[in-house]
Amino acid sequence: MKKNALSRRKLFLSSGLVAALQAGSSSAAPAKKPVLKKGDVILFQGDSVTDCRRARKQQKHANHQAAMGSGYPLFVASGLLGRQHEMNLKFYNRGASGNRVPHLHKRWKSDCLDLKPAVLSILIGVNDIWHKMKGKYDGTVKSYEEGYDDLLKKTRDALPETSLVICEPFVMRCGAVEDTWFPEFEQRREAARRVAQKHNALWVPFQEMFDEAIAAGTTPQHWARDGVHPSFAAHCLMAQKWREVVGI
Amino acid sequence: MKKNALSRRKLFLSSGLVAALQAGSSSAAPAKKPVLKKGDVILFQGDSVTDCRRARKQQKHANHQAAMGSGYPLFVASGLLGRQHEMNLKFYNRGASGNRVPHLHKRWKSDCLDLKPAVLSILIGVNDIWHKMKGKYDGTVKSYEEGYDDLLKKTRDALPETSLVICEPFVMRCGAVEDTWFPEFEQRREAARRVAQKHNALWVPFQEMFDEAIAAGTTPQHWARDGVHPSFAAHCLMAQKWREVVGI
Repeated sequence: MKKNALSRRKLFLSSGLVAALQAGSSSAAPAKKPVLKKGDVILFQGDSVTDCRRARKQQKHANHQAAMGSGYPLFVASGLLGRQHEMNLKFYNRGASGNRVPHLHKRWKSDCLDLKPAVLSILIGVNDIWHKMKGKYDGTVKSYEEGYDDLLKKTRDALPETSLVICEPFVMRCGAVEDTWFPEFEQRREAARRVAQKHNALWVPFQEMFDEAIAAGTTPQHWARDGVHPSFAAHCLMAQKWREVVGI
Repeated sequence: MKKNALSRRKLFLSSGLVAALQAGSSSAAPAKKPVLKKGDVILFQGDSVTDCRRARKQQKHANHQAAMGSGYPLFVASGLLGRQHEMNLKFYNRGASGNRVPHLHKRWKSDCLDLKPAVLSILIGVNDIWHKMKGKYDGTVKSYEEGYDDLLKKTRDALPETSLVICEPFVMRCGAVEDTWFPEFEQRREAARRVAQKHNALWVPFQEMFDEAIAAGTTPQHWARDGVHPSFAAHCLMAQKWREVVGI
């Protein structure tokens, strides 16, 4: 039994490796959880789901409550800043509402590389499809994956020691999220996952987590009334999952 | 054994009763941590430290992010709402800036008893001395203790099953907090502790916690620039201590 399970696991891993190589990726080693040092910077990047009405004026100050927004970055920080204050961790939120991958490229030096994060968390992808469905953007799954890959290459070159955390883009099947989003949205989730694997990033399975919560009897609307922007309860769940995956 | 334990408990209660009567209180049995049931209400009461700019319009809705304010009640809720969503816990914040004990009496029916909390957390006492130091109020340590005691009697009568959580009033020695506040502030902390013991409440030792953090090398300003209103880091620490004491 055990041996079979192991062989099956090996087969899965090696076929994963083949798939990864075919997809042009450079490694399939499991991503390591970060070991934080005193004064380390933890940076959250993304779109409105990360932004959550953060105060721009105070964004230069680490651990500024208003500058953390009111979503999962705030709750991750609140779970760590108290007990671990002797660590002097520095949290920043630089998510920006409406952003797609190309927007991140444009502001990557000032809003990411210059901050030299020890841990860099990115959640991006919903606007890349949403704006397309609205006819305001013509990006494809391929351009999303290539742009995301480029962004992480740029990051790895500048910050080889940074722990990358890629969050799975997610939606609920309600509100603004229509059937026309599928299967393209799933393809984009898979693209994000491939990019994460290629760059040895930790993967936070938000869609999987919400799918499980809904399968257990909650409504999609409980987690995001418009299908895209998480509720308070959803942000709480995201923060817990993030900390579980990242191990801090 | 059981009989002995009971007698011992009686003895403990009666000797506790003597000590308590000497101190003017009625019981000294240790407070029990709450065991939550599905749908239980958790209510935070207090002054501006609890209020933290909560949205009044949405206060009727449990677990409303804006209605939770941006302080320790939000962080306690965020730590529990995600993972425990199947519990359907209902969090409310009804702290009100500027409040002293007499203000709580006035709004206790609508802002506490009617909500039938399974867990009721109260943090009150800083304005009771601050406003006095400013010459705007003439309350004494005795009137603070009697008023607080009355409030908890009223609560116990209406809600005998509610778990009471009394948070230690605290200040940092900086900002608005001057030497003239002492030793009266310490006497008020002791009064709050006696009231908590008398009513079998859990005691959250915030002053002790901050004193330890400062003894360990942090500045008072790190936790409250004006000596009274906690920083983001302080609210995070408070939420963690609260959860540790209350055990949820």
